[in-house]
Amino acid sequence: MPTNPPRTAAKPDDRPKVRLYVEQALAEGQHVEVSQDQSHYLGNVMRMAPGDAVALFNGTAGEWRARIVRLAKRGGILDCEAPTALQANPPDVWMVFAPIKKTRTDFIVEKAVELGVSRIVPVQTEFTNAERIRRDRLQAHAIEAAEQSGGTFVPEVADLTPLPRLLSAWPEGRALWWANEALTGQTTCDLAPAPAAILIGPEGGFSPSERTRLAALPFIRHLALGPRILRADTAAVAALTLWQSLHGDWR
Amino acid sequence: MPTNPPRTAAKPDDRPKVRLYVEQALAEGQHVEVSQDQSHYLGNVMRMAPGDAVALFNGTAGEWRARIVRLAKRGGILDCEAPTALQANPPDVWMVFAPIKKTRTDFIVEKAVELGVSRIVPVQTEFTNAERIRRDRLQAHAIEAAEQSGGTFVPEVADLTPLPRLLSAWPEGRALWWANEALTGQTTCDLAPAPAAILIGPEGGFSPSERTRLAALPFIRHLALGPRILRADTAAVAALTLWQSLHGDWR
Repeated sequence: MPTNPPRTAAKPDDRPKVRLYVEQALAEGQHVEVSQDQSHYLGNVMRMAPGDAVALFNGTAGEWRARIVRLAKRGGILDCEAPTALQANPPDVWMVFAPIKKTRTDFIVEKAVELGVSRIVPVQTEFTNAERIRRDRLQAHAIEAAEQSGGTFVPEVADLTPLPRLLSAWPEGRALWWANEALTGQTTCDLAPAPAAILIGPEGGFSPSERTRLAALPFIRHLALGPRILRADTAAVAALTLWQSLHGDWR
Repeated sequence: MPTNPPRTAAKPDDRPKVRLYVEQALAEGQHVEVSQDQSHYLGNVMRMAPGDAVALFNGTAGEWRARIVRLAKRGGILDCEAPTALQANPPDVWMVFAPIKKTRTDFIVEKAVELGVSRIVPVQTEFTNAERIRRDRLQAHAIEAAEQSGGTFVPEVADLTPLPRLLSAWPEGRALWWANEALTGQTTCDLAPAPAAILIGPEGGFSPSERTRLAALPFIRHLALGPRILRADTAAVAALTLWQSLHGDWR
């Protein structure tokens, strides 16, 4: 779990450096229970003690300063004091990607949270190796990335969905930006505003039949990412960066 | 070493999937020696044999198709046949970054090569943990990334340079784009054309005195990367993506 100080908002001193995601309501005077792991992290890893301040967020209520009341082996209690940052949701953009090797999948989840997405959707394609994913592990990874990045929002990680099923039930009005490796040498710059989604294929690319299907969809938009071959994880970060700078909250 | 097929140029069949960087001259009929490691890779890892085609590049002469003549324990011989891709150099943009943990440093080198830089400059700052780097290891990593990304250019990895020394000897006319974590909520879009450089600080950021010095430099340009905190490796990819799409060869 992270220790980097948030770089945004409020007076720096008001925002504790250690940040934890919790599932409970946050309000002044609220007692908040933290898990066994979190209690261990605060007490044994960070060497914190009762009276020390921790920043808490639950994904909807902004960030709150809380004081440690008690840390025990089975969990801890914190006392919620005052808000230190407003809730800040990212734009409504999804990261749709084919899971690859563990490290690079973790990386895509981490980077998607940092750069700002509303939802993470692992998709199963013909050339995807993964038959299933550890959704809970990826969700925990997204939470850790939010703790680290000073964010107050945690995108939901969806279950692994077969590409055809995802496309059949695609929500109306949401553009799907396909980082299409067949397009090279130019960046498509007219990305659509939210709601949107970025689609990143597996390392081996999409199959010919998947490519044909994708190209025919009315909500598909093509995105070119320069003249060199990008790995899937690089393409994910680059595509989201372009979208955020053109249509997201980086403007 | 990589197996992904290049996604650009030529007729697909003309470009062998296995690509190797060599230091020798490449020309029609040229005999090329490959190293012990490369011979092992071709013969034992990729299960290739005399007569099989390999793509070779040396960083200056484009890409050539070569046939395996002999693979032995001590090295191999290939016969250079015909050019399969023109030499393609990236724009003159440097990636200047403070080395962080091994995995994330490797990652920055890999991504810089994929996204396209002319030089990689590890820099020592006050909050940089690394006292030295394994320059040869990072250079090998850059070569591997070029092999993987279908590129024909390999950026040089410079020695670890203390920030003050780098700044004192800064070349005239090269803008230094500082991914300044104190700037949030907006993307600076008027990036300068080449020659340019991207500057990424260590995880803990630059020290106050470094920040003061950087801000006063005539060649410094500020780059904001959105409202969330980005890790150093994310900032490196995002900054380079923006530069490439606005002023590099992604246009």
